[in-house]
Amino acid sequence: MEKKILFPQIGGIMHGGDYNPEQWLDQPDILEEDIRMMKKAGMNCATLGVFSWSTYEPREGEFHFAWLHDIMDKLYANGIYTILATPSGARPAWLDEIYPECRRVDSYGVREHHGVRHNHCMSAPVYRKKVSVIVNKLVDEFGNHPGLLMWHISNEFGGECYCPHCVKRFQDYLAEKFDHDIEKLNKAWWTTFWSHTYNDFSQIEPPYRNGEFSIMGLNLEWKRFTTWNMTDYMKAEIAILKERTPQIPVTTNFMKEYDGLDYHKMQQPLDVVSWDSYPRFHNDEESFSDTMTENAFDHAMIRCLKKEQPFMLMESAPGLVNWHPFNKMKRPGVHRLASLQAVALGSDTVQYFQWRKGRGSFEQYHGAVVDHLGTDDTRVFREVADLGEELKKLKDLAGTVVKAPVAVLYDWDSLWATDGMKGLAESTRNYIKTCRKAYRNLSALGVDVDVISSEEDYSGYSVIVAPMLYLLHPHVGERMKQFVEQGGHLIATYVTGYVDENQLNYLGGFPGDGLKDLFGVISEEIDTLYPSDRNCVHFAEMPEGEVRDYAEVLRVADGTNVLGTYEQDYYKGMAAVTERTCQNGSAMYIAARLDDASMQHLYARTLKKAGVSMYKLPYGVERHTREADGMRYVFYLNDTTGPQIVSGVEGIDLLTGEVIKGILTLEPYGVACVKE
Amino acid sequence: MEKKILFPQIGGIMHGGDYNPEQWLDQPDILEEDIRMMKKAGMNCATLGVFSWSTYEPREGEFHFAWLHDIMDKLYANGIYTILATPSGARPAWLDEIYPECRRVDSYGVREHHGVRHNHCMSAPVYRKKVSVIVNKLVDEFGNHPGLLMWHISNEFGGECYCPHCVKRFQDYLAEKFDHDIEKLNKAWWTTFWSHTYNDFSQIEPPYRNGEFSIMGLNLEWKRFTTWNMTDYMKAEIAILKERTPQIPVTTNFMKEYDGLDYHKMQQPLDVVSWDSYPRFHNDEESFSDTMTENAFDHAMIRCLKKEQPFMLMESAPGLVNWHPFNKMKRPGVHRLASLQAVALGSDTVQYFQWRKGRGSFEQYHGAVVDHLGTDDTRVFREVADLGEELKKLKDLAGTVVKAPVAVLYDWDSLWATDGMKGLAESTRNYIKTCRKAYRNLSALGVDVDVISSEEDYSGYSVIVAPMLYLLHPHVGERMKQFVEQGGHLIATYVTGYVDENQLNYLGGFPGDGLKDLFGVISEEIDTLYPSDRNCVHFAEMPEGEVRDYAEVLRVADGTNVLGTYEQDYYKGMAAVTERTCQNGSAMYIAARLDDASMQHLYARTLKKAGVSMYKLPYGVERHTREADGMRYVFYLNDTTGPQIVSGVEGIDLLTGEVIKGILTLEPYGVACVKE
Amino acid sequence: MEKKILFPQIGGIMHGGDYNPEQWLDQPDILEEDIRMMKKAGMNCATLGVFSWSTYEPREGEFHFAWLHDIMDKLYANGIYTILATPSGARPAWLDEIYPECRRVDSYGVREHHGVRHNHCMSAPVYRKKVSVIVNKLVDEFGNHPGLLMWHISNEFGGECYCPHCVKRFQDYLAEKFDHDIEKLNKAWWTTFWSHTYNDFSQIEPPYRNGEFSIMGLNLEWKRFTTWNMTDYMKAEIAILKERTPQIPVTTNFMKEYDGLDYHKMQQPLDVVSWDSYPRFHNDEESFSDTMTENAFDHAMIRCLKKEQPFMLMESAPGLVNWHPFNKMKRPGVHRLASLQAVALGSDTVQYFQWRKGRGSFEQYHGAVVDHLGTDDTRVFREVADLGEELKKLKDLAGTVVKAPVAVLYDWDSLWATDGMKGLAESTRNYIKTCRKAYRNLSALGVDVDVISSEEDYSGYSVIVAPMLYLLHPHVGERMKQFVEQGGHLIATYVTGYVDENQLNYLGGFPGDGLKDLFGVISEEIDTLYPSDRNCVHFAEMPEGEVRDYAEVLRVADGTNVLGTYEQDYYKGMAAVTERTCQNGSAMYIAARLDDASMQHLYARTLKKAGVSMYKLPYGVERHTREADGMRYVFYLNDTTGPQIVSGVEGIDLLTGEVIKGILTLEPYGVACVKE
Repeated sequence: MEKKILFPQIGGIMHGGDYNPEQWLDQPDILEEDIRMMKKAGMNCATLGVFSWSTYEPREGEFHFAWLHDIMDKLYANGIYTILATPSGARPAWLDEIYPECRRVDSYGVREHHGVRHNHCMSAPVYRKKVSVIVNKLVDEFGNHPGLLMWHISNEFGGECYCPHCVKRFQDYLAEKFDHDIEKLNKAWWTTFWSHTYNDFSQIEPPYRNGEFSIMGLNLEWKRFTTWNMTDYMKAEIAILKERTPQIPVTTNFMKEYDGLDYHKMQQPLDVVSWDSYPRFHNDEESFSDTMTENAFDHAMIRCLKKEQPFMLMESAPGLVNWHPFNKMKRPGVHRLASLQAVALGSDTVQYFQWRKGRGSFEQYHGAVVDHLGTDDTRVFREVADLGEELKKLKDLAGTVVKAPVAVLYDWDSLWATDGMKGLAESTRNYIKTCRKAYRNLSALGVDVDVISSEEDYSGYSVIVAPMLYLLHPHVGERMKQFVEQGGHLIATYVTGYVDENQLNYLGGFPGDGLKDLFGVISEEIDTLYPSDRNCVHFAEMPEGEVRDYAEVLRVADGTNVLGTYEQDYYKGMAAVTERTCQNGSAMYIAARLDDASMQHLYARTLKKAGVSMYKLPYGVERHTREADGMRYVFYLNDTTGPQIVSGVEGIDLLTGEVIKGILTLEPYGVACVKE
Repeated sequence: MEKKILFPQIGGIMHGGDYNPEQWLDQPDILEEDIRMMKKAGMNCATLGVFSWSTYEPREGEFHFAWLHDIMDKLYANGIYTILATPSGARPAWLDEIYPECRRVDSYGVREHHGVRHNHCMSAPVYRKKVSVIVNKLVDEFGNHPGLLMWHISNEFGGECYCPHCVKRFQDYLAEKFDHDIEKLNKAWWTTFWSHTYNDFSQIEPPYRNGEFSIMGLNLEWKRFTTWNMTDYMKAEIAILKERTPQIPVTTNFMKEYDGLDYHKMQQPLDVVSWDSYPRFHNDEESFSDTMTENAFDHAMIRCLKKEQPFMLMESAPGLVNWHPFNKMKRPGVHRLASLQAVALGSDTVQYFQWRKGRGSFEQYHGAVVDHLGTDDTRVFREVADLGEELKKLKDLAGTVVKAPVAVLYDWDSLWATDGMKGLAESTRNYIKTCRKAYRNLSALGVDVDVISSEEDYSGYSVIVAPMLYLLHPHVGERMKQFVEQGGHLIATYVTGYVDENQLNYLGGFPGDGLKDLFGVISEEIDTLYPSDRNCVHFAEMPEGEVRDYAEVLRVADGTNVLGTYEQDYYKGMAAVTERTCQNGSAMYIAARLDDASMQHLYARTLKKAGVSMYKLPYGVERHTREADGMRYVFYLNDTTGPQIVSGVEGIDLLTGEVIKGILTLEPYGVACVKE
Repeated sequence: MEKKILFPQIGGIMHGGDYNPEQWLDQPDILEEDIRMMKKAGMNCATLGVFSWSTYEPREGEFHFAWLHDIMDKLYANGIYTILATPSGARPAWLDEIYPECRRVDSYGVREHHGVRHNHCMSAPVYRKKVSVIVNKLVDEFGNHPGLLMWHISNEFGGECYCPHCVKRFQDYLAEKFDHDIEKLNKAWWTTFWSHTYNDFSQIEPPYRNGEFSIMGLNLEWKRFTTWNMTDYMKAEIAILKERTPQIPVTTNFMKEYDGLDYHKMQQPLDVVSWDSYPRFHNDEESFSDTMTENAFDHAMIRCLKKEQPFMLMESAPGLVNWHPFNKMKRPGVHRLASLQAVALGSDTVQYFQWRKGRGSFEQYHGAVVDHLGTDDTRVFREVADLGEELKKLKDLAGTVVKAPVAVLYDWDSLWATDGMKGLAESTRNYIKTCRKAYRNLSALGVDVDVISSEEDYSGYSVIVAPMLYLLHPHVGERMKQFVEQGGHLIATYVTGYVDENQLNYLGGFPGDGLKDLFGVISEEIDTLYPSDRNCVHFAEMPEGEVRDYAEVLRVADGTNVLGTYEQDYYKGMAAVTERTCQNGSAMYIAARLDDASMQHLYARTLKKAGVSMYKLPYGVERHTREADGMRYVFYLNDTTGPQIVSGVEGIDLLTGEVIKGILTLEPYGVACVKE
């Protein structure tokens, strides 16, 4: 495995952030201070132009780029590279005024007024045309600038549009998908139910909130279409850039567990994936360690979109953000901890939104490196600058990657299908939370964990955990069977394989698509528990487990081992956890929502069987590994406010230079990066 | 009293359910299995065609009925009758596309998009015309089919429409009602308030949520109009059927405590009433017994729409439904218990939605007799089949009815008027819950209880309870007076007789329309308590009672007995419960919302005085009686998870064949039907 | 200081209320009873015509005034004056039918249907024209009536309109404000952020909820415009009246803490300010004393709109209202207590909505002097009549005013800016509650407190408290500095001076506009606490204080005294409360949200330094002073249900005639008015 260096120019870990000098063009002293302070903070990159359209083109066809030349030149002269964004994230007022069809239509069919951001219609030809003009202009001006490191496409894609253009494209998309055969669609969507049969693709409307929201297949396909159409829009921007500056990589910034777009699909046209991480640190609902582990899941999921190379942490907030319900300051040390967590999990960058707080508008209180106070002697600035120094010590990590022996399957289709399903309990289905918990309980065993699509190649993994994989893509059943037959260990849960890719239920027993044979069980019933209900599971070999929310009643086939049985209610004594072995592999089925300790026991049992090394960690300590070229770097992160001791550590801590021989002591919120 | 047999062909209790073979026409093996399994489950009826419009008429004017002939023939050949629905519950896409005015307009005046169901405009002439075509076609095809048992009109009528057609019909309805005299309306609606006087009926708009929602009379009349218009629509369907197949009875399926339509009015054009019962069994807010008693109230209310004959339980869910917040499985035995409760309360049918779960769309997880698994060896199937056997033992009950000595008054007008009133506390007015509690506290004394409109004949009853009868229909005051003078016993509560049929307050003291003299009290004030507030009532002859929510301050006339007085607050020592006797009758006024035990005491006191037999029952046991032709059948239902013993029972338990001599032991969730 | 008598004709305190005889024109007996009972209740004034437009002008151009002549004549003949309202608070149906543009457009851009009230477009020329016609007619008819005491403009102005007329006026307003220079606006609104630059004023839309709601400056300016436009509309009505009846004073009735209109601006064209007070007495969320003190703040705020003269309590509810979540009856004595609180705080009137309950429509249950029962022997009537007698004993107070040594600053701009800000925690910013608490904690020390705009003259005060003065109007920094330099004592808190009048952050350190030097502190960070978080402040000279919600981290300048320091968290040991003295004045900065006891300690410390007399009061007793012509009247109000003893009182209690020598005993809910 060789290093995959994203930006050779940077020569290590990138340290940068969004920079909006167009807000300060009338204050050249501030712009000069910016460069002085960026250098002091150890920044080697700045992201420019994210919302600069109205500065570039204040009136249609009237362009101003001199200011940006000036700034990019100065940055470059001071060793700071530029990531240049296309400005399509927010439109000038003149554009919406002249071309109203750029504005989205909402889910009731009403066109929005001009305003806010990230709300252009993805289909409107005129918008694509106007974007093409400005993007080409950017290439004209800056495509050959030596400081240009990367193109950043638009910003935080999201949302939906129900305008006539989008409706028409949706109909065409469906016609294409269903081979122009409306009967295929009718069958796939089970439209005889409630007399919803369509005669023609042109009759199909999107799932308006005051219209047809009751066809599961339509709802799901609309989500898929939105991903397809957003990606199609994005590809139109990328096509210009790739044609004219093929040497410059492109990215766009994804968002935390954003449920509107299937990133597994959307990452394809990008060279590098990046995302914006804004955890609610120190909140009152979960432990700090929970917040950190949730963030680790997000990093891992983003990383695995392109798991053969590092990813980028495109945005994070120095200090705090301004849009959480409570915007609490990050405690001293947390900025360092969270930034190094990103690196530990495979990021080659630590970037911020934003460099300097603006004086007004929606995000005037969003954390920044430089505050309204304007000086470099604030606590926040100092922590950023100190981190800048430390990142230099990690320069050898650039290009290394994470190689995990275990994967959690996470699919947007199962997210959408479980979120939209009419059954169980809406408030407790929690698909994504269930996947996070799987990640967390596996991580707690000290193993590196990937988060991948069910359509990914399984062959590199020893263990695969598939929580609530409600919807099975074609061939998943078969591929799981192969995985197990080839010695893999598979763990699935309640609510697995209920529906096919059109959200049609499998007949003849869940889990469908052959999985009932692989696991040796059929789920005859699923009992939905009220939040105050509990059941228990008795295990022969481990402590009793507690059940909440869901409990399936299983039929168990001959040859299937029963590992645990229910202790209460009308399904008392019946199987709750089973396992079936197949050659060297195994297939475990966990029919109920069990507590974390039980899940860790069950995971550990399987990891052991699979020969995956586990590491004993104190509660609240994370362990992550990056490697390449035969080198391994192991990160230890202390997500607690007390010191923590980890034993069995050998190597040099790159951050302190200290040689560790067995015992590693981590300060509160402390981090070590041990080169083995 | 003679039996009133609804369906002689059935020869006992009907066992059936909704059947949607059009979803499986491409799988004839499944259709064959259906018939085999229906027979195994003891089904003698199936409801067809509820949502079959797009299968009947996939394109305008193109009809397909052969499939249904085939199925009805086969069912009939196997001893299974058909209830055939008109398909107007859901419209084909082509219909909305060609005739957009079939789609409703919402309460903001915006026309909905196509989709979902039960949302056709009741007024649109073109919709009525298209429905007439398909209904006539159904009669052409199936009107003489020997298996045809009944017409089922549309499905679960509900909702409102604010389209121009409906607005115009509303104006015409009002002109008719107010003798084409706008001044009459102005006076009735008190429109000088806030300068809301109308000059002409054509000026009147419905209560748009962004318009005129502040006139109580208008709001109420809009509800009444909606009932009138929905019924008028329904009558148009019925007229076709009655003209062409007068021998076939018609029904439509009502819904649990549906507050949008006055079923007292809407039942009139029907031959038989039926409803869909979906209790939230095993929920976390109330005891199981509460859930059952609530359902009993619903059965009784529906039964009393046509109390001289049995009603039908048109839909109920085997297993579970899919639309409750938590869809918990019915525990073993509960299906039997709930089904027999319907029979105990006067239903001659036990029917399901649905026979077989569909593979997709909105209700793919709604309980059914046959699951996606597709077999007859599931728990749910077995419970249904076992019940099918038991129902055969009750065949003599078909046609018997309930004769109750006690009635609770329940009016949609008082529901609408209290729900819409601006006063008291919106969150605690709870008109329907108060009526339910009255029913429950009376039932707990072992008596059969009717739930009737205040406009019904009172003469058959010994005791009438009128909880919160806020709005008095014309002559109700006078008729109550007659009832008491003729020896009846009347019990009313706080919030009685505040307004007349136009929601105008009575002047000169509440309760109005002469009731202040009948009860011998005037309510000078009503105090609204916060949920944490309490008061108490001291009684001479019974334990102290607890007051929540509402307490009226009374002026008591000479000759009125004070039974209880407040113990606290500024009305301490003043009357809380009074009684006035009049010849052999009595009129009790309960001025405050008292606890259940106190209410049961007060009810028992009056029942005793009225000579109504009461039966001592263990907590959680229901007792209901059906009778005819001199025979009496007494049901005992155990709504608890422990065994229960009832004493004083004599007769033969039809379900077990056992002779009961004094002591009846009920198993958990057990049922006995004792023929006396 | 001389008395400022509002209505010499009244000869004391006004006792009156809204009177709607047009609802009873067909019942002349009721109208006669009204006059008899008004006299019995000691009423000397009635408010007429508030919603009489459709009675005056039932059809366009057809006028009827005879009925009102008759009533005003009779009232006058019986010693009852009339306040006559212009009827623009609610429009006849014909007007909306003929002139749809009178109806407002909502915040999505959708025009409302006809209905309800207080919802005319403020800009529509045709509405202004139709109002002008009816107002002129009223002047024609009643302008010279000897019973006419005052004009009451419309009713409870409120709401917003987004119609094209309003949008255009908004654009013109902005052009005017920003000198027709769009670049000035762009800079003031920081529109380069998110590319929101405008090219022209005609491009600017109001902050539609489905449009541009993300520009803080736009949102704020829209609020200011709404005040301006509503006031402009009101001035158009006033202009007619002032021109033709200059001798008749005008008012309009304001509402409790109404956040939609800046009353500091809107009071300017009025002769007298008045408001409608509807506290939620006896609620379950706060103590009765809290409710009363909150009401006292409202009275004080309204009083200070024109603090050189008395104000009017235009509406209050005898008994209860009908629109609270729980409409609990006022306990005996509370009506007297609350009414005299208004007088104590500077009102020269006690008026009701309404005299007599209507029989129907939205407010049929709103408390009134005369109930549906229609008699004068109810508890509510008796309490009103008793109060009428007592008010006569206070006739000398008419025209006296409150002279407070202390002021709390309260600005609508800071309310709007903090409510709309994106930062901190939306649920705990609570600007108005914080101002109320400041008022309460000062009042508890027995001092009279004004509530004034930051733009008011500070010179009459010894102490000024500025809670959370987030937005600084021009020159406020400078004027605060002068105030302190001239010996004033200023107290400010966290979240002071973050933004200028355009909501642009001050650069170089908060509080801005020079205040960081006046207070000698800079707020480097603000930590937002979760509701479960706490910190503490250690003081040298007073008990430890508890911190919730907000804690700023300060940099303290040389020469600034640190009075208290944080005890926990990363800012442990750092300054939490500071003081800087400047000549004889002082400037205290309270950096955290402290508990009430600590705030009272800090206030008392400063009041003592400022030489302001404080009075020791039992918990739940209010003390307020009115004075003029050398006379002082001190009110003591007992807001508790037990007796209370106040010492150090000397004078004659005007209500009892008793001479108080040192000890004043107050009955539960008791009141004394001591003439010193």
